[in-house]
Amino acid sequence: MINYPTKKARPVNAQPTKSHKNRGVRLEKLINDTNAYYLAQNIAVIHKKPVPVQIVNVAYPRRSLAQIKEAYYKTPSTTDYNGLYQGQYIDFDVKETKSNTSFPLKNIHQHQIDHLKAVHEHGGLAFIIIYVYRFDQAFLLPYPSIDIFLKRAKTGRKSMTLDEIKTHGFVIQEGFRPRLDYLKALDTWQASFKNSA
Amino acid sequence: MINYPTKKARPVNAQPTKSHKNRGVRLEKLINDTNAYYLAQNIAVIHKKPVPVQIVNVAYPRRSLAQIKEAYYKTPSTTDYNGLYQGQYIDFDVKETKSNTSFPLKNIHQHQIDHLKAVHEHGGLAFIIIYVYRFDQAFLLPYPSIDIFLKRAKTGRKSMTLDEIKTHGFVIQEGFRPRLDYLKALDTWQASFKNSA
Repeated sequence: MINYPTKKARPVNAQPTKSHKNRGVRLEKLINDTNAYYLAQNIAVIHKKPVPVQIVNVAYPRRSLAQIKEAYYKTPSTTDYNGLYQGQYIDFDVKETKSNTSFPLKNIHQHQIDHLKAVHEHGGLAFIIIYVYRFDQAFLLPYPSIDIFLKRAKTGRKSMTLDEIKTHGFVIQEGFRPRLDYLKALDTWQASFKNSA
Repeated sequence: MINYPTKKARPVNAQPTKSHKNRGVRLEKLINDTNAYYLAQNIAVIHKKPVPVQIVNVAYPRRSLAQIKEAYYKTPSTTDYNGLYQGQYIDFDVKETKSNTSFPLKNIHQHQIDHLKAVHEHGGLAFIIIYVYRFDQAFLLPYPSIDIFLKRAKTGRKSMTLDEIKTHGFVIQEGFRPRLDYLKALDTWQASFKNSA
């Protein structure tokens, strides 16, 4: 989030328009707002997990105030979001791609893949939410689809094309309340599953 | 965890024997070890949530190293543990009581009660794991039982007696692998539920 002072500026990517500039930052907020709405409306109980930190040193400037003076980021062992919807365990992470052509699979980290796989195998609903700048559109991409592309990547291309995301993903409508109704996309996914069974 | 330097020492509670002294610290480790065992054995996917902190200031002593220089503890909005077991969402917190007679309900914080209630109402399995020093025994106490005592507390006593914990809770066996087999206690709870249905 905060760049090292002497770090060179990244080459400006001309692709995203001005309104897209802070889209990545916004995306997490949209999901958090949506989760707050789901909770308030008694639709689902879904929370973002805190960022894991290793706390090394704590000071007490006042008796009632604990101030962490030294801590380090730790690698998470799971995804960022999980919760409960209509009796089902759901688990996901949020990604985005500014590419005009594809989403590199290396952007889904190994610990996230391992966790999503475990969730899927234990009967939970595992997926990623991926925002594609080019389409100005977020998709819910089920883990079983991701798995197809991970298997292909062993011998073939290391990314999903945007068209593949469109084909395998479920469109998430953006609106006012909720901001990003991803559970509706999840309903569509589950309905398609039942229809094909 | 770390006491304010000038804080007066608490009166020594003569009750717990020496071997019990660090029991509270140990309890969380036992649960974490148990979860690692469940995951490795492909029995369940259950993780402790990181402690939520508000990060205010980050320094970069080396380019590759982010060092958090100022941060504060935040109040969690959920319980400490959740996960997936046999297709079911499970959610719990861990407590203990050194009292010879009872467990004060105020030790279950309002945000934990609200969250456990929501989980229960949305079809998840909500409970607390409570270690009773007097019995040297941990119990799984389902949320519906806790709710009975919370309702009583509105007009009556503000605690559960140790006998009530024994009656309403399910004994958790302590062993070598896993250390605290709370999912076995959960199985017993679920079986009792089916039998009474």
